[in-house]
Amino acid sequence: MLPTKGYAAHNDHDPLVPFEFSRRDPGPHDVLIEILYCGVCHSDLHQIRNEWHETIYPIVPGHEIVGRVVRTGNAVTRFKPGDLAGVGVFVDSCRECENCRQGLEQYCEHGMIGTYNSWEKDGKHYTFGGYSNQIVVDEHYVLHIPEKLDLKGVAPLLCAGITTYSPLRYLKVGKGTRVAIAGLGGLGHMGVKWAAAMGAEVTLLSSSPSKEADARRLGAHEFVLISDEQALKKRKAYFDVILNTISAPHDYNRYLKLLRLNGTMAVVGLPPAPQQVEVFNLTSFRRSIMGSQIGGIRETQEMLDYAAEKQITADVEVIAIHEINTALDRLARNDVKYRFVIDMSTLS
Amino acid sequence: MLPTKGYAAHNDHDPLVPFEFSRRDPGPHDVLIEILYCGVCHSDLHQIRNEWHETIYPIVPGHEIVGRVVRTGNAVTRFKPGDLAGVGVFVDSCRECENCRQGLEQYCEHGMIGTYNSWEKDGKHYTFGGYSNQIVVDEHYVLHIPEKLDLKGVAPLLCAGITTYSPLRYLKVGKGTRVAIAGLGGLGHMGVKWAAAMGAEVTLLSSSPSKEADARRLGAHEFVLISDEQALKKRKAYFDVILNTISAPHDYNRYLKLLRLNGTMAVVGLPPAPQQVEVFNLTSFRRSIMGSQIGGIRETQEMLDYAAEKQITADVEVIAIHEINTALDRLARNDVKYRFVIDMSTLS
Repeated sequence: MLPTKGYAAHNDHDPLVPFEFSRRDPGPHDVLIEILYCGVCHSDLHQIRNEWHETIYPIVPGHEIVGRVVRTGNAVTRFKPGDLAGVGVFVDSCRECENCRQGLEQYCEHGMIGTYNSWEKDGKHYTFGGYSNQIVVDEHYVLHIPEKLDLKGVAPLLCAGITTYSPLRYLKVGKGTRVAIAGLGGLGHMGVKWAAAMGAEVTLLSSSPSKEADARRLGAHEFVLISDEQALKKRKAYFDVILNTISAPHDYNRYLKLLRLNGTMAVVGLPPAPQQVEVFNLTSFRRSIMGSQIGGIRETQEMLDYAAEKQITADVEVIAIHEINTALDRLARNDVKYRFVIDMSTLS
Repeated sequence: MLPTKGYAAHNDHDPLVPFEFSRRDPGPHDVLIEILYCGVCHSDLHQIRNEWHETIYPIVPGHEIVGRVVRTGNAVTRFKPGDLAGVGVFVDSCRECENCRQGLEQYCEHGMIGTYNSWEKDGKHYTFGGYSNQIVVDEHYVLHIPEKLDLKGVAPLLCAGITTYSPLRYLKVGKGTRVAIAGLGGLGHMGVKWAAAMGAEVTLLSSSPSKEADARRLGAHEFVLISDEQALKKRKAYFDVILNTISAPHDYNRYLKLLRLNGTMAVVGLPPAPQQVEVFNLTSFRRSIMGSQIGGIRETQEMLDYAAEKQITADVEVIAIHEINTALDRLARNDVKYRFVIDMSTLS
């Protein structure tokens, strides 16, 4: 067993504190990764505070992991010591169901194994995430990280990046597509960057006028205040795709009306309560609401390679691990541009 | 002007009564049709009773019209006297917007002109529907009716038929597709027939065990009671397409869970209040909810030709026009298998 250092929450209200635990020795197919950076995702906060009612304490969060391979198992073929490596939201899946066989492990019929707060397939070991100095993962669930990108900004690609990239690709966004990104946070700011890189006409929809300058800097061509009735009228039945990244409760119907014939609102934000949908807003122009979550290993690799090609990373605020509790409080207030990333060298 | 006989409602509560009015003389592009049969659609009832708060009285309902051409304008090229002809939910549209130019007049950006309870494009004349002995319609909005089908059962194809056919085609239902039809009424019974004819594996989802025998007779291979938790468990993440024809308020989430990866619930029923959607049910398998309404002229013709090829018509109860009020009361209780059709020869 490998002695490992991290930060953990021991209950739903106390601050995270230093925590020592063991990782398994790397098996034949495993890669041992020294963690360099780990992003702070909003779902870390939800699970630390047990807002999804399924947290097992102590919990070591973190699923936006970038590091360097230290050791590999005998059978590992895709990585060697010294390689950069990434780990995202899951570290295993059944590998046998129809969805896994299609490379869509995030939709595993038996449930993917989360990078933290999940039971391993043996039903005995519990996963600990990336707020730690090292991690052991089967090579098939490890990503190659292009050397030429800034690593701090790469970490958030493993969740915020792929969550927004995947639905845009699935919906064939490209030149000529009219895309709106709803919400400018960790997810939304990546949505703007991807959609602009893909050649789409990009509009940011936001409830806050203060977001306009940043939206344009990130690549948006237009900005629409969602409370501005006149502006909405001009964009009625206009967009092919709305990527809705908003997690707070909000009125889907205001957004649906902006979709043109056959348009789709892809939702990647998870509002806590059921959303109300006026069915007439769907039937009137054959509109759809589609859900999407993260992406499979193959597509995550494709995204990382695309990020390298287009020189795209997340906008981040780097913090030391002992600043994590302050950062989580700020995250709860959406006070971050646009992702906190922990410099894991501060752990030792 | 052409003196015309029909049945009209004069307010939201009194019975329909005989009503005399005028139709325009056929213009160069118009076809004068003697109406033989007209289906009784649930939306007739909604509008007679002003449940959508937009009825202008007197109203002559009816948009499932089958008849025979009596006279044609000088410039008409597609019809001649003696031809069978059909008219559906709309009799005109702007003809210039992107959607009209694609042959998707039902999604006209300026709003299609309804067969009844609508203002014509001149803004002065008001449309009267098929509960009447004749109608005048621009030939571009008139369908050819195959001679070899039973006309009584053809009338409902003009609304119930195309409303269910169009989304099944749009979603590429065919051999190997797992389709569920939710609800067995005027729309649902057509959904079962189409999906079975297209070669899909068809399951009827219903809240009433008494529907099973009929569902199987109409072509369903399986029947699932939507209240049966065990049966639902077995069909979790199973269907590619659910065609939801239910207009009463119901829980979308029970149905969404039955969709497999990339599955779509196409809604054609219009529940009166907003529906509640648990977003997690969409994100977990990249599921969609899509709305759809009727079909364009081109696709409606395609459907009629397909109906002739497959010998598909609606199951109907034929009534005389003076029985319309009793029929509407029964329709309000869903007591019809599966569509009332008025024999218009009873009008004279």
